[in-house]
Amino acid sequence: METTLKGIVRYDGSGFAGWQTQPGRRTVQGELEAAMSRIAGSRVRVQGASRTDAGVHALGQVFSCRWPGPFPARLRCALSRMLGPEIRVTDLTEAPADFNARFRATAKCYVYSLDLGREPDPLSARYAWHVPFPIDLERLRALLPLLEGTHDFAGFQSVGNPAKRTVRTLFSARLDPGGLIQSRDAAVLWRIEFRGDGFLYHMVRNITGTVIEIARGRFAPEFLEESLQSPGPFRGHCAPAHGLALASVEYAAFAANESAP
Amino acid sequence: METTLKGIVRYDGSGFAGWQTQPGRRTVQGELEAAMSRIAGSRVRVQGASRTDAGVHALGQVFSCRWPGPFPARLRCALSRMLGPEIRVTDLTEAPADFNARFRATAKCYVYSLDLGREPDPLSARYAWHVPFPIDLERLRALLPLLEGTHDFAGFQSVGNPAKRTVRTLFSARLDPGGLIQSRDAAVLWRIEFRGDGFLYHMVRNITGTVIEIARGRFAPEFLEESLQSPGPFRGHCAPAHGLALASVEYAAFAANESAP
Repeated sequence: METTLKGIVRYDGSGFAGWQTQPGRRTVQGELEAAMSRIAGSRVRVQGASRTDAGVHALGQVFSCRWPGPFPARLRCALSRMLGPEIRVTDLTEAPADFNARFRATAKCYVYSLDLGREPDPLSARYAWHVPFPIDLERLRALLPLLEGTHDFAGFQSVGNPAKRTVRTLFSARLDPGGLIQSRDAAVLWRIEFRGDGFLYHMVRNITGTVIEIARGRFAPEFLEESLQSPGPFRGHCAPAHGLALASVEYAAFAANESAP
Repeated sequence: METTLKGIVRYDGSGFAGWQTQPGRRTVQGELEAAMSRIAGSRVRVQGASRTDAGVHALGQVFSCRWPGPFPARLRCALSRMLGPEIRVTDLTEAPADFNARFRATAKCYVYSLDLGREPDPLSARYAWHVPFPIDLERLRALLPLLEGTHDFAGFQSVGNPAKRTVRTLFSARLDPGGLIQSRDAAVLWRIEFRGDGFLYHMVRNITGTVIEIARGRFAPEFLEESLQSPGPFRGHCAPAHGLALASVEYAAFAANESAP
């Protein structure tokens, strides 16, 4: 008997070579699979909703896996004891047999944190990109709606991991005060939240780098529209990984009688 | 000609063996003195208001030093370029010739952050003590006023760095929601703020460990009063360093005509 599991995982990505298992590198998927396999006594593979890059954080990454046996009621707590303080499985439930965290996702939300202080804040430095030049926040805010909607985002895709279909729908892109992770007294942190049905390789970081370059006056506002029209790959400034966090992943509700296809 | 400087410094203490210079160890004072000495071209020594322990953070540590020359208008920016992202000099001003950051301080404020979630939050783990058992917050809140006022705090002093005078005045000790440094979505963080005219070795961490042990029901409430009456040294539970931050240091206003004694 096998059970399909859906887990939510939160991590500080600073010390990891990203989500995806790579030989000889410390990755979140690798740590999780090693711990689960040890508990199961056999190889367990997990599928993440998003293959976050090295240094990217997550508040609500979702994974699915096949577990060899009935629903393991104490697995979540056992994982908490085995995994270090950087990774936490915050939720673990039984899912329909055909649930797949990656292919069943209907939307993802990413948050990019910006430190716009004169100098970087030591207590936010792991979780926000310090932008060391004056930023026109109103110009930045005005650019974001231009990206919303359904577009071919090929021009915002980095080389290295090309998608065949490059049309995506960005449901919203918003600028708000406050970093995702910050010290209570830092008033210079901002965040851009992106919610969409899918994101291409480096798309959030490339869009963030672009709107920052325009808002600091280095690129003309037309650069955004040109990038949207471009067949790619992206040739502008990619914002660094450590400012980015995968906030949440959404799925259609499971039907009560849903079963394997 | 020499100038006396007063600086405010903010740091993530995770990677340092504390404030105070130690041969062969990476310390905040050591990094600061090395950078200032390099810029000055001669040995500069700084005096910190508080010798924070290894792993303790600071939002507003204060230091004083004698600078060989007139007020160096661009020193603060030069230090920002030389010091890594973990240390930031946020303010640098000229002070009266006899200003001493340690001996002139009239009050200090420390903040201790607690993660009371079922499991530690990966994105707050560097900056909050995760307490892995249920805590009675009302009991915790009720204990803190018992510590306020002028007491002989010898019973809350650790061995290793004894003060001759052990009477201190704790102006306030308060429990509030929210860690000092935290992710926006974590609702389980709390902080205790301590403001006093001085603190003995490990005093804040020993008090925090004590009130937590009482609030979880492991020690009777009387243990607090007994510790206050004890000649020391403290024999209870010392809360870990990484939850602690020096928030600010206060001084009497400089008189306009103040000069060296």
